[in-house]
Amino acid sequence: MRGLNPVQPWLDALKWDAQGMIPAIAQDATGGGVLMFAFMNRQSLQATVDGGTAVYWSRSRQRLWRKGEQSGHVQRARSIRADCDGDVLLSIDQEGGIACHTGRESCFFYQLQGDVWVAVDPVLKDPKDIYGK
Amino acid sequence: MRGLNPVQPWLDALKWDAQGMIPAIAQDATGGGVLMFAFMNRQSLQATVDGGTAVYWSRSRQRLWRKGEQSGHVQRARSIRADCDGDVLLSIDQEGGIACHTGRESCFFYQLQGDVWVAVDPVLKDPKDIYGK
Repeated sequence: MRGLNPVQPWLDALKWDAQGMIPAIAQDATGGGVLMFAFMNRQSLQATVDGGTAVYWSRSRQRLWRKGEQSGHVQRARSIRADCDGDVLLSIDQEGGIACHTGRESCFFYQLQGDVWVAVDPVLKDPKDIYGK
Repeated sequence: MRGLNPVQPWLDALKWDAQGMIPAIAQDATGGGVLMFAFMNRQSLQATVDGGTAVYWSRSRQRLWRKGEQSGHVQRARSIRADCDGDVLLSIDQEGGIACHTGRESCFFYQLQGDVWVAVDPVLKDPKDIYGK
């Protein structure tokens, strides 16, 4: 069967793509909402496990992205799961209840209504008050 | 602000990567569990909207992958969401309650325990009985 081989060292068991990345999903451990999606490289996943809070790889900035480093909205990892392809699912406690840089709970705040994307979730905190700019 | 521009035609508003793909997450509409992760191209997302059941793009087979085409475990899309990057979140009703080809509810059945991936979710149905082989 193709798939994750749990006998391998845990980081090696995942299927890193040509850029050394795997997809990572963050889900609220309590409410169940999917809060964000990002990519991780080996270093970021190791840092997540070591530190207990989510660390992604920012492809735009080409550096480790410690979620909450500016906003304070860190994500405490309660469990880490993987599927057969080595995609990763973090079950997290979201500090401040806000994962999105727009001040919303979830980054997935656009809903397709007919053929239009509509921002359906409320802004809980003004981004100016989050980022101080 | 970088991000999805809802004024664009809805498919154009998403950020297709160099291979014409976007990440897609399927979440159980009722229980909230994240069931699977896959990729979509424009054609598969359009087909999902048109038909009301999830259609992904199989990168290994290089063709449209109508989820459930073999197993019968189709995913009825109840809502489609996107984040600023145009990653897609499907809220679905999972036919048969089984998303995984191993016969488990969710594809994310490996949990990291210490430094070992452990299959923690039960097999609900023998894959032989799903796929008849």
